[in-house]
Amino acid sequence: MELKLEAVVNGIEAVSPDWRLRARAYLNNLAIPPWSLGRLLDLAEQLAAIKQTLKPSVGNRVVVTMAGDHGVVEEGVSTFPQEVTLQMVYNFVAGGAGINVIAKAAGARVVVVDMGVAADLDELARHGKIVSRKIAPGTGNMARGPAMTREQAVQALEAGIGIAGRLVQEGAELLGTGDMGIGNTTPSSAVLAALAGLSAREVTGRGTGIDDETLERKIGVIDRALSLNRPDPGDPVDVLAKVGGFEIGGIAGVILGAAYFKVPVVVDGFISTAGALLAKRLAPPAVDYMIAAHRSMEVAHWHMLQELGLRPLLDLDMRLGEGTGAALAMNIVEAAARVIGEMLTFEAAGVTASDAGRQ
Amino acid sequence: MELKLEAVVNGIEAVSPDWRLRARAYLNNLAIPPWSLGRLLDLAEQLAAIKQTLKPSVGNRVVVTMAGDHGVVEEGVSTFPQEVTLQMVYNFVAGGAGINVIAKAAGARVVVVDMGVAADLDELARHGKIVSRKIAPGTGNMARGPAMTREQAVQALEAGIGIAGRLVQEGAELLGTGDMGIGNTTPSSAVLAALAGLSAREVTGRGTGIDDETLERKIGVIDRALSLNRPDPGDPVDVLAKVGGFEIGGIAGVILGAAYFKVPVVVDGFISTAGALLAKRLAPPAVDYMIAAHRSMEVAHWHMLQELGLRPLLDLDMRLGEGTGAALAMNIVEAAARVIGEMLTFEAAGVTASDAGRQ
Repeated sequence: MELKLEAVVNGIEAVSPDWRLRARAYLNNLAIPPWSLGRLLDLAEQLAAIKQTLKPSVGNRVVVTMAGDHGVVEEGVSTFPQEVTLQMVYNFVAGGAGINVIAKAAGARVVVVDMGVAADLDELARHGKIVSRKIAPGTGNMARGPAMTREQAVQALEAGIGIAGRLVQEGAELLGTGDMGIGNTTPSSAVLAALAGLSAREVTGRGTGIDDETLERKIGVIDRALSLNRPDPGDPVDVLAKVGGFEIGGIAGVILGAAYFKVPVVVDGFISTAGALLAKRLAPPAVDYMIAAHRSMEVAHWHMLQELGLRPLLDLDMRLGEGTGAALAMNIVEAAARVIGEMLTFEAAGVTASDAGRQ
Repeated sequence: MELKLEAVVNGIEAVSPDWRLRARAYLNNLAIPPWSLGRLLDLAEQLAAIKQTLKPSVGNRVVVTMAGDHGVVEEGVSTFPQEVTLQMVYNFVAGGAGINVIAKAAGARVVVVDMGVAADLDELARHGKIVSRKIAPGTGNMARGPAMTREQAVQALEAGIGIAGRLVQEGAELLGTGDMGIGNTTPSSAVLAALAGLSAREVTGRGTGIDDETLERKIGVIDRALSLNRPDPGDPVDVLAKVGGFEIGGIAGVILGAAYFKVPVVVDGFISTAGALLAKRLAPPAVDYMIAAHRSMEVAHWHMLQELGLRPLLDLDMRLGEGTGAALAMNIVEAAARVIGEMLTFEAAGVTASDAGRQ
């Protein structure tokens, strides 16, 4: 079944407030001082409310790493050449990248999706090493025109929704997002600027490590892309089409799909959070299903998290992407699920509650 | 073999700077933008330097949760009655406590040690459910005299060293510390005050959740304990004896033992960090083997971390103890070990490095 964007956007429901209260009441009876596991308990409450059970399971977890190329790299906005996107897809398949080893530590599977790499990856797709949802071999250069057509933007979102749907159908209980695409901090910054009404300078950071001169050029490029394309801040699909990227659309789609199917989704760093912002603007209740993995070193990431109203779990000076932050945070999500699912209450454990112990 | 405190303290060596450099050079060649996995790479470097290998393994991990009671609870410094220490030991054995389920999520084993619970736990020890190193059934009330004798303090430290030694001998590659003891934020605060020259007010927090009136009483009790016992800040064993606790001494011993046997040790929150502070004052190079798990909600924890010069990995508003923060952080340590042990370099992955990619 092919899910249409509109049906999904309209079908996403806010998380049940009744289940939130029920989970909170239960967690307040665990044999510990009141709320002394802090954010693990907040997370446990969220998981219980999403899954409508006091024993939420997140054992089956998958990080979806979406790859795409960007026409804007011809403006010289990255330290890496475009072919590195392709090379990194091969590294993912070989199991030697950051996301592979961190996902292993997190007990998560990695699914690599070609959303629009500027190279032929059919061979890998045929052998089931990656999933192909290629919209086109790279976006257009947004400094000279729109990154993609509106139809392609919808196609990217629906591809992500479809992948989330398939994974949930296969049993996934927790999804995570990740990205690979040389140059993709540039469209992510532009998406933030367009949606939040910020200037190019406010949203632009050093990405993989550009110098001062390149940073100034990057700000100029984003500024030009915004004034040339005039993305409509009230129309997230237009923003994605004008200044986004195929993998950013795919990530937004995965998040929408997770929310639609009531599965929690761990959002990685800067590029993934640009996708999350698009998802929230398309369907505000989707934010209830999001878990912000970490605070990225990319400076404007903080603006995005503020827009979403999310506080990240980790703050470890990371800025790699690929889904590495999401994978790392999945262990914390698992701990939270076990806290509510397996810990004993004062009564069950035979532990005397303090006066302060019951709230 | 019974290891003596003095031999261990003198035998602890700083981590090899050569191995640090070697690890850093290797990590700089991983196929990622420079140092873009941030603190995971710092941690990978530390693990490699401790274990003197570029493939450090932390698969075999153990959290040692040390329990003890405190005479000072008769001053009314906690919201929980003393019998909760015993009840929680039973909860640990039943597998229903926070440390049990979070350790499970972290793939860690939990070893519970009776360092001085004010109850008979022989039955549990006989059945191998806990380890008994009971010094005495609870410390003396430090508001009226020393918490323990100097001999008992040395005994507590050596018990911890012995346990670390046994676990390492059995194959442990990563240790974590934890505590259980109603009232034990009071001696932990007093240890910090004595070692760092801070006032009772500066080091005292709300523990499991005391109200304003109890907080004032707790500050008064710590103040009285310090002025009555006059612990010598230059003599950590004296500080432990005068205003410490059996489980705090045991934790300090585990940390010293880990450092002596060159095994990294994840230090939990407020009570464990009081132990770490004692360990550092006894043997300054021990700090090279420590990993600060998380920032506790207990306010003076930050002072302790400053004294140690350590930055915690997590900041999740936790204040439970038991080793829960240490267990949660172990997944991050595993991810770091896999990053250095399993990720591919630019050359091995066939990825083009940027100019900025080589430093």
